[in-house]
Amino acid sequence: MKDLSTPDYLTKEDVTALIIAAKKTSGLSWEAIATAINMSPVWTHSACMGMNAMPSDKAQALVTTLDLPAEAVAVLEESPTKIWDQTVPTDPCIYRLYEIVGVYGPTIKALIHEEFGDGIMSAIDFNMEVTRVQHEKGDRVKIEMSGKYLAYNAW
Amino acid sequence: MKDLSTPDYLTKEDVTALIIAAKKTSGLSWEAIATAINMSPVWTHSACMGMNAMPSDKAQALVTTLDLPAEAVAVLEESPTKIWDQTVPTDPCIYRLYEIVGVYGPTIKALIHEEFGDGIMSAIDFNMEVTRVQHEKGDRVKIEMSGKYLAYNAW
Amino acid sequence: MKDLSTPDYLTKEDVTALIIAAKKTSGLSWEAIATAINMSPVWTHSACMGMNAMPSDKAQALVTTLDLPAEAVAVLEESPTKIWDQTVPTDPCIYRLYEIVGVYGPTIKALIHEEFGDGIMSAIDFNMEVTRVQHEKGDRVKIEMSGKYLAYNAW
Amino acid sequence: MKDLSTPDYLTKEDVTALIIAAKKTSGLSWEAIATAINMSPVWTHSACMGMNAMPSDKAQALVTTLDLPAEAVAVLEESPTKIWDQTVPTDPCIYRLYEIVGVYGPTIKALIHEEFGDGIMSAIDFNMEVTRVQHEKGDRVKIEMSGKYLAYNAW
Amino acid sequence: MKDLSTPDYLTKEDVTALIIAAKKTSGLSWEAIATAINMSPVWTHSACMGMNAMPSDKAQALVTTLDLPAEAVAVLEESPTKIWDQTVPTDPCIYRLYEIVGVYGPTIKALIHEEFGDGIMSAIDFNMEVTRVQHEKGDRVKIEMSGKYLAYNAW
Amino acid sequence: MKDLSTPDYLTKEDVTALIIAAKKTSGLSWEAIATAINMSPVWTHSACMGMNAMPSDKAQALVTTLDLPAEAVAVLEESPTKIWDQTVPTDPCIYRLYEIVGVYGPTIKALIHEEFGDGIMSAIDFNMEVTRVQHEKGDRVKIEMSGKYLAYNAW
Amino acid sequence: MKDLSTPDYLTKEDVTALIIAAKKTSGLSWEAIATAINMSPVWTHSACMGMNAMPSDKAQALVTTLDLPAEAVAVLEESPTKIWDQTVPTDPCIYRLYEIVGVYGPTIKALIHEEFGDGIMSAIDFNMEVTRVQHEKGDRVKIEMSGKYLAYNAW
Amino acid sequence: MKDLSTPDYLTKEDVTALIIAAKKTSGLSWEAIATAINMSPVWTHSACMGMNAMPSDKAQALVTTLDLPAEAVAVLEESPTKIWDQTVPTDPCIYRLYEIVGVYGPTIKALIHEEFGDGIMSAIDFNMEVTRVQHEKGDRVKIEMSGKYLAYNAW
Amino acid sequence: MKDLSTPDYLTKEDVTALIIAAKKTSGLSWEAIATAINMSPVWTHSACMGMNAMPSDKAQALVTTLDLPAEAVAVLEESPTKIWDQTVPTDPCIYRLYEIVGVYGPTIKALIHEEFGDGIMSAIDFNMEVTRVQHEKGDRVKIEMSGKYLAYNAW
Amino acid sequence: MKDLSTPDYLTKEDVTALIIAAKKTSGLSWEAIATAINMSPVWTHSACMGMNAMPSDKAQALVTTLDLPAEAVAVLEESPTKIWDQTVPTDPCIYRLYEIVGVYGPTIKALIHEEFGDGIMSAIDFNMEVTRVQHEKGDRVKIEMSGKYLAYNAW
Repeated sequence: MKDLSTPDYLTKEDVTALIIAAKKTSGLSWEAIATAINMSPVWTHSACMGMNAMPSDKAQALVTTLDLPAEAVAVLEESPTKIWDQTVPTDPCIYRLYEIVGVYGPTIKALIHEEFGDGIMSAIDFNMEVTRVQHEKGDRVKIEMSGKYLAYNAW
Repeated sequence: MKDLSTPDYLTKEDVTALIIAAKKTSGLSWEAIATAINMSPVWTHSACMGMNAMPSDKAQALVTTLDLPAEAVAVLEESPTKIWDQTVPTDPCIYRLYEIVGVYGPTIKALIHEEFGDGIMSAIDFNMEVTRVQHEKGDRVKIEMSGKYLAYNAW
Repeated sequence: MKDLSTPDYLTKEDVTALIIAAKKTSGLSWEAIATAINMSPVWTHSACMGMNAMPSDKAQALVTTLDLPAEAVAVLEESPTKIWDQTVPTDPCIYRLYEIVGVYGPTIKALIHEEFGDGIMSAIDFNMEVTRVQHEKGDRVKIEMSGKYLAYNAW
Repeated sequence: MKDLSTPDYLTKEDVTALIIAAKKTSGLSWEAIATAINMSPVWTHSACMGMNAMPSDKAQALVTTLDLPAEAVAVLEESPTKIWDQTVPTDPCIYRLYEIVGVYGPTIKALIHEEFGDGIMSAIDFNMEVTRVQHEKGDRVKIEMSGKYLAYNAW
Repeated sequence: MKDLSTPDYLTKEDVTALIIAAKKTSGLSWEAIATAINMSPVWTHSACMGMNAMPSDKAQALVTTLDLPAEAVAVLEESPTKIWDQTVPTDPCIYRLYEIVGVYGPTIKALIHEEFGDGIMSAIDFNMEVTRVQHEKGDRVKIEMSGKYLAYNAW
Repeated sequence: MKDLSTPDYLTKEDVTALIIAAKKTSGLSWEAIATAINMSPVWTHSACMGMNAMPSDKAQALVTTLDLPAEAVAVLEESPTKIWDQTVPTDPCIYRLYEIVGVYGPTIKALIHEEFGDGIMSAIDFNMEVTRVQHEKGDRVKIEMSGKYLAYNAW
Repeated sequence: MKDLSTPDYLTKEDVTALIIAAKKTSGLSWEAIATAINMSPVWTHSACMGMNAMPSDKAQALVTTLDLPAEAVAVLEESPTKIWDQTVPTDPCIYRLYEIVGVYGPTIKALIHEEFGDGIMSAIDFNMEVTRVQHEKGDRVKIEMSGKYLAYNAW
Repeated sequence: MKDLSTPDYLTKEDVTALIIAAKKTSGLSWEAIATAINMSPVWTHSACMGMNAMPSDKAQALVTTLDLPAEAVAVLEESPTKIWDQTVPTDPCIYRLYEIVGVYGPTIKALIHEEFGDGIMSAIDFNMEVTRVQHEKGDRVKIEMSGKYLAYNAW
Repeated sequence: MKDLSTPDYLTKEDVTALIIAAKKTSGLSWEAIATAINMSPVWTHSACMGMNAMPSDKAQALVTTLDLPAEAVAVLEESPTKIWDQTVPTDPCIYRLYEIVGVYGPTIKALIHEEFGDGIMSAIDFNMEVTRVQHEKGDRVKIEMSGKYLAYNAW
Repeated sequence: MKDLSTPDYLTKEDVTALIIAAKKTSGLSWEAIATAINMSPVWTHSACMGMNAMPSDKAQALVTTLDLPAEAVAVLEESPTKIWDQTVPTDPCIYRLYEIVGVYGPTIKALIHEEFGDGIMSAIDFNMEVTRVQHEKGDRVKIEMSGKYLAYNAW
């Protein structure tokens, strides 16, 4: 009877594992995968990690690109539940971003209020790019975020 | 005897309070203050909040611009101890930035590793700009971060 | 010298304290105050608590209604920094709302995704009403929330 | 001997997994499932997630609708232990609800006290609806909560 | 100007401090105070601590009994915001109660479900008594709690 | 070799699972099981959950009543390690008990000190009963706790 | 009116501060103070810190020994609310004790169960001594704890 | 290929499980096991739980006493990583020890400083005994700790 | 179908387990392994634990030294996600390091600012050595850290 | 009467504030102050911050060097209670040290065990130096820690 309790369906975690395995096999970079499905590398990686949902055609393109099982298409289209385990991230590369929010968060808030009024930058109607900028004293990482300004309602 | 225990010197918090009061009196925006001392608005606001140290000439320029007491110059030059109280920020404008780190942190990390190798974006040799981008469906907030790539050492 | 460090300006907390005192003196209910400034009780109370910014005319109307000092107008217009101290609220009336989010949060999420697609209900372009509904087995509290649907971006 | 330790019975988690699999197979929406058992979508989804107990006839109807094993009926009738793992939810769709409680919780409390007296809105004798409201500037999510007013006892 | 920011009104904390001082002066026990206002000792102490609101006549009786200032009546009638600072109480007398909830909470839940159905014991429509029970092996503390059974809604 | 690492013995968790399965099969209530072993329902449930140790004759009686494997007797007699995972319980039925400790803990403490002196109610030399009390406005849950008064030592 | 809110009475914290000041003035050690009131140093220090209540004669003796104000007697007799701020103590001298509980706690528990049965060592009917033991490889701190064995109840 | 990832070696947890099983089979008490290897019960239990490393001859003696597999010797000799999961222990027998540290920690610290100077009791060069002390009002648990005094360095 | 969800690839954790097993089999010390691949013991151990990425030639050398499967080379080269589970480490050997940061962190910061200016010691362009120093009163552990000074940017 | 509660004595915090003020007035660096009292800069700064106790002659020398009030000598000699507020430090300069413990803690532990046996590096019999090392690619911060090796006891 217990067998009833483990239905056969793929989860987002399963599909992420399949993608990682397929990426290793294929030797493709995230940039190459993004190009293959005609989306940005940031969004593509995020959706592959199960942190964003793919439109149907993009999910199909990814399955083709990486030779994933057809069942993965529907899973890639599902709305994810975005969960992160570490309230304060420990990996240095991610922690530095957390630190920037801690140090500069109130500054970003003050400048948004000064320029736009009482509101926020949306993290939903949002996009981001990560690029390399050459520099004589050592190349730099450039992160550009763009989010719609949302004004608070008064009613 | 107890009077001995409260020496007369200004702290970073005192100077921040003086700046806020002077800003209200003068009617200057953060952008205008930044222009007056010839620095960016992000850095200027951050240093005024006591989250960055000012070079001597900038501290002097700020004191002049806002008509602060002369004692404030030395305080503005001191290295701050960067402390934030909320592990997870509650203000929506700042929380959205925290959320972006939670959702996209692993993605930024993966793309940095792919493009640069094993390392991080520095949060010390770092700068940032916040600007308004006009858009027909509603203007957008643009945040550009630039940090030096730092490679991990092997020894 | 130390006197320099406590500039004379009103904070949001000061104005909230003034409002509470004036409300006691005047005997006005929140509903009456809201009516006087022609806004909803939820928004009015929230702005008086320093959790929302008032448009200029509303701030002026409130100052007139409650006979507050003129300096309060500018403070009421400032964008607040929304901070709450208790990660899990202890007051039973507020805890029950937290509990509802814990129990029904995933359900609300699932139904939004089913009805709208991959996105969320905005807490910024948002309004709420609290009303009394008569019921033979005991009157009921009705809370109606309305927030703009925001779709996730793919880029 | 160790085999003794894994008795063959279904848990709430098992039944939830069976429901999700059956829903995928059947292609039914939560709305359709709710209609089939003649209950609201909010309550139906919540009970399917193991966060509410089903009356016997509803459990039977669900088992029929989704072609679940007969053993699931008794499990659906059991009182659940309502557990959520994240003190502060990270998924943006659920976090916004948490944020609303943080920002407006004291306001809801004040208005309940003003309108009803010293008491709370019950989260037990409670129901909720989530609906779509069309709006020219973008459709809106409407959440209506209704809970019995419970007055504090004095003794 | 700053003087505007500290309006002259009593808070619940002020009144609690006045009660404790008056209790010391008068030499009355909590039991005696409760008798004087014709309420139970548990409720009386709790309301004096600012954790429950007093009906008008009881507030008046308390003010008379303890010779408090007349302004205290209105404060005692206000709905309190129930806040406790320690998630896990450290005082041994209170910690033991927390421990009982940890050890026997699931048992109380199971027995309520078995006897009543799917629901809870209300902590709002609730009362409690603390008494001394003589016992040859050492007297015992008896705590009796009584709360209305609240059944979960299905809708 | 790895097989060495999973010795064949039953744990408290195993026995609890066996008891739950046997209870379902037998259709016995906790009350009936308690009667069968001639102990109270609270203690019986708690011991079955692995939160109390059973005297040898009670363990034997339980094994007979529920037709458990003979190995379970020794396990039921073992001293449990009492662990609960949630510092603040989320299930509403258990949370309400936590809330009562938060709101009334200092009151119970004050009344114990007034009646007995400086000491506490033991949670070890302790017993509890949960009963249903009929009431015209809705039946009530009655919880009676009795613990030995323990006076602090001075030495 | 506000003056009403700060009644003139000494708190446990006030008395502790008076004791520390008087100890400095008098030059007495904790050992000497304990001897003067004919109690142990551990208990004496703990009661002076406000973590234990003093019997009337001991409170009187302490007030005489340290030339404290007469009002301090009643305060020393009050039952304290035992609060510590750091869940994990940071001071190395105290942390080591915490570490010992972490490392050896399960061992102490196992040996108590083996020697006494299912129960605990009381922290209420409890006493402790701290002494210096000379040792050729460096003197040692000896801590002796003695608490009454309390057996769990079965009912 | 995946089989490569689970190498066949025993961990400390495996050996602890083997010891518990062997102890049940043999019927030996911790005291008897300790006697058999000529060490104290506290240290012996602790090392068996994987919280201390055994010298080679003791590990060999334990393996002989309990008829463990020969591979266990090397594992018992390994330096353990001492981890405990609960920052605040919930089991009452262990919690009482934590409570003693909370209540008496500052007292132990003050007396060490008075007797020895600025330093601590080592938790490394440390030993402990747990014994039963007969007492007419109920037997008592005696815990004796002895740790080397370590003086802080000044340099 | 479910088999699809567990792709056959080695993780960093798998490789660490393989290394530990191979180290036991070979009897090599960390120092010897480090010498074999011509790197420092600190870096070598850290990379073997999956906390640093290995350059290709070092990964190959390690695989040869320990006779690991060839697939391990690519895994050792991957950038790790550096995660630690315990915010405050409990193992005494590691806790002491945490304690040193707590006690001396502000001192290290002050001296860096005095000597270098406003900046930090990099933990990325960083190396460390752990050595034994003979001493007549007992040998000492010497830890030498070296990190590049990074100056804060002003822009 | 209340005046009794604020005895006139200096605390460690008072003395630290006096030192900071005197340092500003005198213009001395920490290095210069350390030289003046003939101790290391790390220990001197730490003791000035109230994190270490000063031997009598060093306290006297500091008071002379910085022209502090004579009462400060006794306070500098007192054993401090070492408290830090942030479990995870936020200041980048201190956080990096925390990060190093997180990343390299297990490595340091493994190498100590390999080189010395089962034990730890003392944080009490401990000293540290912070120096600047010139380097062509940018100067480096060097931190050297030295702590006595302490072996675990077996008994």
